[in-house]
Amino acid sequence: MLDTEKRKGRSGGRAARVALRSAPLAENMRPVRAGLPGGQYRPLTDAEVLRIHHAALDALEQIGLSQAPPSGVEILTKAGAILGDDGRIRFPRALVEDMLAKAARNITLHGRDPQYDLHLTGTNVHFGTAGAAVHVVDLATNTYRDSTAQDLHDAAKITHALDNVHFFQRAMVARDISDNLEMDLNTIYACCSGTTKHVGTSFDDPSHVAPSIELLHRIAGGEEAWRARPFVSNSNCFVVPPMKFAEESCRSMEACIRAGMPVLLLSAGQAGATAPAPIALAIVQAVAECLAGVVYVNAMAPGHPAVFGTWPFVSDLRTGAMSGGSAEQALLTAGCAQMHRFYDIPGGAAAGISDSKLPDMQAGWETGITNVLAGLSGLNMVYEAVGMHASLLGFCLESLVLGDDVLGQVLRTVRGIDVTEDSTSIEAMKAVCLGGPGHYLGSDQTLALMQTEYIYPTLGNRMSPKEWNEANRPMLLDQAIARKNDILSKAQIQIDPAVDAAIRADYNIYFK
Amino acid sequence: MLDTEKRKGRSGGRAARVALRSAPLAENMRPVRAGLPGGQYRPLTDAEVLRIHHAALDALEQIGLSQAPPSGVEILTKAGAILGDDGRIRFPRALVEDMLAKAARNITLHGRDPQYDLHLTGTNVHFGTAGAAVHVVDLATNTYRDSTAQDLHDAAKITHALDNVHFFQRAMVARDISDNLEMDLNTIYACCSGTTKHVGTSFDDPSHVAPSIELLHRIAGGEEAWRARPFVSNSNCFVVPPMKFAEESCRSMEACIRAGMPVLLLSAGQAGATAPAPIALAIVQAVAECLAGVVYVNAMAPGHPAVFGTWPFVSDLRTGAMSGGSAEQALLTAGCAQMHRFYDIPGGAAAGISDSKLPDMQAGWETGITNVLAGLSGLNMVYEAVGMHASLLGFCLESLVLGDDVLGQVLRTVRGIDVTEDSTSIEAMKAVCLGGPGHYLGSDQTLALMQTEYIYPTLGNRMSPKEWNEANRPMLLDQAIARKNDILSKAQIQIDPAVDAAIRADYNIYFK
Repeated sequence: MLDTEKRKGRSGGRAARVALRSAPLAENMRPVRAGLPGGQYRPLTDAEVLRIHHAALDALEQIGLSQAPPSGVEILTKAGAILGDDGRIRFPRALVEDMLAKAARNITLHGRDPQYDLHLTGTNVHFGTAGAAVHVVDLATNTYRDSTAQDLHDAAKITHALDNVHFFQRAMVARDISDNLEMDLNTIYACCSGTTKHVGTSFDDPSHVAPSIELLHRIAGGEEAWRARPFVSNSNCFVVPPMKFAEESCRSMEACIRAGMPVLLLSAGQAGATAPAPIALAIVQAVAECLAGVVYVNAMAPGHPAVFGTWPFVSDLRTGAMSGGSAEQALLTAGCAQMHRFYDIPGGAAAGISDSKLPDMQAGWETGITNVLAGLSGLNMVYEAVGMHASLLGFCLESLVLGDDVLGQVLRTVRGIDVTEDSTSIEAMKAVCLGGPGHYLGSDQTLALMQTEYIYPTLGNRMSPKEWNEANRPMLLDQAIARKNDILSKAQIQIDPAVDAAIRADYNIYFK
Repeated sequence: MLDTEKRKGRSGGRAARVALRSAPLAENMRPVRAGLPGGQYRPLTDAEVLRIHHAALDALEQIGLSQAPPSGVEILTKAGAILGDDGRIRFPRALVEDMLAKAARNITLHGRDPQYDLHLTGTNVHFGTAGAAVHVVDLATNTYRDSTAQDLHDAAKITHALDNVHFFQRAMVARDISDNLEMDLNTIYACCSGTTKHVGTSFDDPSHVAPSIELLHRIAGGEEAWRARPFVSNSNCFVVPPMKFAEESCRSMEACIRAGMPVLLLSAGQAGATAPAPIALAIVQAVAECLAGVVYVNAMAPGHPAVFGTWPFVSDLRTGAMSGGSAEQALLTAGCAQMHRFYDIPGGAAAGISDSKLPDMQAGWETGITNVLAGLSGLNMVYEAVGMHASLLGFCLESLVLGDDVLGQVLRTVRGIDVTEDSTSIEAMKAVCLGGPGHYLGSDQTLALMQTEYIYPTLGNRMSPKEWNEANRPMLLDQAIARKNDILSKAQIQIDPAVDAAIRADYNIYFK
C-alpha cells in the first residue's frame, strides 16, 4: 500500500516534470537573462583601483596624447586641455574629473525591438559579438576562407535566435566588397536586416558616416525615429596605443556624435607591444586613453552616450603575436571592469576570444574562462564573447551557436547563489530525512526550482556513456552544424519587406 | 644611423628573448605554482555565509544523522552528541564549536618527495585528480572501455610529469581486478609507483585498511617513516546523504585514523536527488554532514588531519542524472570553499568535471569554468580537476594531459594582477612615448616579465591561420595523444627497484 502510494507519488512527480518542461517560461522566471548584475569577482582591491586611477591621471597630465586632428585640438584645448610644444595634448586632472562628472551614466543601447534594449548600469552584464575577422572557419574542411557579407548576415541571423547573445556588433569584414563605402553600408544592412538586437559597426573613414546615417534613417523610418532610439553604436578606435589619437577615427567619432549615434571609445593596446607588459600598467594606459576619450566626447557633447572601451589585449611575449584566449587577457578585462565601476560609467572590454583555429577543447576553455571572469567582474558590455578564433582573425558560425551554451552557463554563475530564508530553511531537509522519502527527487521544492534555478544546455551533452552509445555517439560539432543550419533555414529578414525592396533597389547589397 | 641603432636594439631584444626562453626558471620565479592563494571570487556575502552556518548547526541539532556504526555511536555520544529514540545522533552546537576549535588547521598533505608537499592553509589552492570512473575514453575509436589497473598507473605516471596537477587521487576503478582486496592494494601501488606526489585512495571495506597500511609501510620504508610523512590520504564517503552515516566507511575511517592516515571527510550529495535542490540548502546539508565528520574525527583523535570535503554535486533535474560540468556545480563548489574559509579549516570540493563524453569544446568550457571558479574561490583541494568525463563515469588520459594547460591558465588567474609601485609606474610609458620607440616590444620591462608574469600553453595553439596552415593544420587531440605517449615512454617507476621487485614478488600486481 505504502509502496503503491510511493510509486504513484513518484510517477506523479515525473508527469509534473514533463508538464513543466513543455510550458515556456516567462522572461522574469528564466534562470538567466541579459543584464544580470555581476561583481562577485574582484581581482583588484580598492587600494589597487585607486593606484591605477592616479597613475592614469598622472599619465594624462605628464605624457598626454599626440596626433589629435585639428578639430580635436580645438575641442580639447577649448575645454582646458593643454597643447604642448611637442604636439601632445595634456590633461589637467581637474579637467578629467569635470568631464567624468558630465559623462553619461545608466545609458541604454537600444535594440530595434525594445525587448532587446541593453541597460548599462551598475554591474549589469551583457554579452555580444564584435571584431574584424577576415576569415571564416569552414568546419567541413577545417580550413580558413575569406569572410563575406553573406557570412556577416548569417551571423546576425543566428545571433537573433540565440537567447544568451545580447547584441550583435560587426564581427567580420566583408572581404568580397572592394569598395569601402559599399562595405560599410553592407555591413550595417547585413547586421540590421539579420537581427533587431542592438548592432555595432565601425567606420574607418569619416566621409562614410553621412551616407551610413542616411541608410539608418531609412531603416528606422526617418531621422526622428533614429534619434529617439539609435539602435546602432559605433566602435571608435579613437586611439592608436600608446597614447596617440587616431586622426581619421576621431573625425568619424565627431560625425557619429553629431548624428546621435552612441560611441564605443575603444582603446585596443596589446600588452608587451603597444601597451606595457605589466598587466596593471596596461590597464593604466587603457584607462588613461579612454579618459582622454571621455574628455573629448563630453567637451563636444556633454552626456553623449559613450562606452568606456578599455580593451587591452595580450601579446604572447615569445613572438609578439596576440593571444586573446589567455589567462592574462581574462585578468586585463576583469581589472578594467573594476575601473569602470570605480568611475561608475558604462564600460566594455573583450572576452571569449580563442587562440585556437577550431572549436576544439582549447577553444572551450579559453572562451569559458575569459567569459566567466568578464561576467563575474560585472562588465557591462562583453565584446567578442562568441565565435572568435585565431586570436580574432577567424570567425566560426558554429562557435557562435555553441557560444550560446557557454554564455548560458556563464550567466548562471553571474546570477549566483540565492541565499534567502526560504532557500536555507531546513524544513525541506526535515521533510525528507525525518520519516520522509529519504531523497529530494520530485519534491515540491525540487519541481519548483527545476526551471527557474537551473539552466540546461541546448547542445551540451549530458547523456550517460550507455545512452550516448545507443544514440550512435553524437558529436558536438555535428550538432552545432545542424543547429546552425536549422536556425538559418528558419530565419526571417528583420526589415519590412517594402523597405527591404527599396533599399535593395537603391544600394548594391551583396547578400541574400 | 638612428634606424640602424633601432634595428640593432630590436634584434638584440629578440636574441635576449631566445636566451631567456632556453634557461629554466627557478621555482620561485615561475608564473604559477602549487598553493597560490585565491579568494578573489566570493559568491556569498559574509551575511550569507553566516546564514548557511547557522542553518547547518540547526540541521545537526534538529535532524542529526542516522546509521552510525556502534563504534561511532560510542565515540560521538561520549563526546556529547545525543542518540535519539529514532536512532539519529544529534549534535548540540556547543559540541560542534568545541570540535571545530580542536580541528587540525594548516595541515600538510605530504608527497613522497617533499617538493610536492601540499600546504593546506588560508586560501592556498591545489589541483588534482579524483573519482571512481569505470571507463576509459579511447580517442582512437571515440568509444568507452572498462578502466584497468594499467590505466590508473599510466594516469599516475602522466600526473607525475605535469606541473599544474599537484596531487594524484585514485581516479579510476581497476575493473580488471575482481578480488576487492587485490584491487585496493593494486590501486595504492599503481598510484605510488607512478608518482611521488601526494596520493589519495578510498577504502570501502574496513578490513582492507590493515593490509593496505602494511603495503604503505613497505613503500615508505617502515611504519615510522610512514607516520612521519603519510603520503596517502583516504577519501572517506563517511556519509550517505541526506544525513546518514555510511557504516562501513565510518569504520574504515576509524582504521585509517589509527594508522596515521589523513582523511578526506567526503559528503557527496546530489542537489535535487540526495541533497536539496536550492544551491544554498545543498551547501547547508553538505556543511552539516562534514561538521558531523569533524566531530567524529576530533572526538576520536583530536587534531587528526582531515579535509572538509563538501562535494555537493548537481542533478540535471529533467532526468535526475548527475551534471558535473554545470554552472550550478561551479557555484556549489565555490560556495563551499567560502564555508571552509569561514571555519578556517582545510577544505576540498570537486571541479573540472565534464559531462561531455569526449575532450571536445564542451569539455573545454566545462572544465575551464568550473576549475577557474574553484581556484579563485580559494579552495585548498580541487578534486576531479582533470581527465573526468561523462559526469565522472569516464576518464581520459589525453584530457589529463590537456588539463595541465587548462590548470596553467587557471593558476595564472589565481595569481592575479600584481599592483605595485613598479608595476604601475608611468616611467615605462614615458620612456616609450616621449621620444622613445613608440612601442614596448623588447623593452627591458617586457623582457623581464615575459617568463615570470606570463604563462605559455604546452599544447594550446597560438599560431596565426597562415602558420597553422603551413604546419599542416595540427589538431589538438593529435598533439595530446603524442604528448601522452611521449610522457609514458619516458616515465620511470617511482619506487626503488629492489623494493619494487620484492613487492611484485609478494603481491599480485596487475600492471607493468
